[in-house]
Amino acid sequence: MSLIENLKWRHAVKAYDPNKKVPEDTIEQIVEAARLAPTSSGLQPFKVLVVKNPQIREKLAAGALNPECMRDCSHLLVFAAWDTYTAERIDNVYDFTTDERGLPRGRFSSYTDKLKSIYLNQPDEHNFAHAARQTYIALGLALAQAAELRIDSTPAEGFDNRLVDDVLELEKYGLKSVSMMYVGYADAEKDWIAPMKKVRIPKEEFIIRF
Amino acid sequence: MSLIENLKWRHAVKAYDPNKKVPEDTIEQIVEAARLAPTSSGLQPFKVLVVKNPQIREKLAAGALNPECMRDCSHLLVFAAWDTYTAERIDNVYDFTTDERGLPRGRFSSYTDKLKSIYLNQPDEHNFAHAARQTYIALGLALAQAAELRIDSTPAEGFDNRLVDDVLELEKYGLKSVSMMYVGYADAEKDWIAPMKKVRIPKEEFIIRF
Repeated sequence: MSLIENLKWRHAVKAYDPNKKVPEDTIEQIVEAARLAPTSSGLQPFKVLVVKNPQIREKLAAGALNPECMRDCSHLLVFAAWDTYTAERIDNVYDFTTDERGLPRGRFSSYTDKLKSIYLNQPDEHNFAHAARQTYIALGLALAQAAELRIDSTPAEGFDNRLVDDVLELEKYGLKSVSMMYVGYADAEKDWIAPMKKVRIPKEEFIIRF
Repeated sequence: MSLIENLKWRHAVKAYDPNKKVPEDTIEQIVEAARLAPTSSGLQPFKVLVVKNPQIREKLAAGALNPECMRDCSHLLVFAAWDTYTAERIDNVYDFTTDERGLPRGRFSSYTDKLKSIYLNQPDEHNFAHAARQTYIALGLALAQAAELRIDSTPAEGFDNRLVDDVLELEKYGLKSVSMMYVGYADAEKDWIAPMKKVRIPKEEFIIRF
């Protein structure tokens, strides 16, 4: 099926069947789409946390807008971005890239110097905000991948970021939570939005032409 | 082809052939993926500007990190987000949604009241930052859609946002530019990155499991 058909098929599921689990290799394919996401300067300034542990999910649910989804979905994905950009993080990415491409390390040093001159002179909050934006590219692609596989999912921002950061000890990874994605199988009876028409802004309002 | 194969196929093209133009109906399909993107509370707080006019593009290129791409690509897409959330904008979206679903207006008023209590008490910069994040979901899906159609593209943040906002008169639409996407056909000789291996963080570093 095409991407457009898959996007029309999906919706943000409002209730999950707690007894149905998504196979692990299917979850891997969903996260793979996020891993392949393009990011600014190729820095991939984020990670995906796959949370299955029910005790941990119970703790995270305390601050959630929809705690039932967080508990009942099969797998909870957390998108967490770098808390800032550092010279070491930038160098690590480019050292790995040159190694993988069989190029000498430093091959892109004029570019990484430019990146450092921008990011190292900005406050951490600015850098985190920029990294956080990149996670949405990955979130969108992971949602599209779940749809391609006809797996239900929900993108979510309605949670307590500080609580999530604390419970998952994200500070030690240099990360801060940005968004979540619930993955699983909808509870058809409770998923009240399922029968409703998908509504989007009409094309001629959405596009401005020059 | 699957989304994962399409993501592996694509790369951020570094030079375009100025003589090759993408058919209009293909551009429409790329923008359609952006239009179908999920967004926070379904507000779709952004628009896509499709810029073909060469004089306008020449003006935008002044502040660009890669002015040649901006000039030479077939179509330039600009993702521009709401400059803030307002009660009127929220109501417009939900009035349209209820109309489309054959529901009485106000059916979701407890939800929209909650949205207003959050957004109308935040500074415009916070609201814009939140709307801007949503555009990245759409950018990612538009890039994936271009790849599915085997059309070359480049995501771009390296431009002068104020200049773009001024030239496209985005203030009158209540919008501010966030990102761009160049669409077209690569200039195979000048697109130096094309023969290089696509590099991504290894899966076991990208995923943290709980």
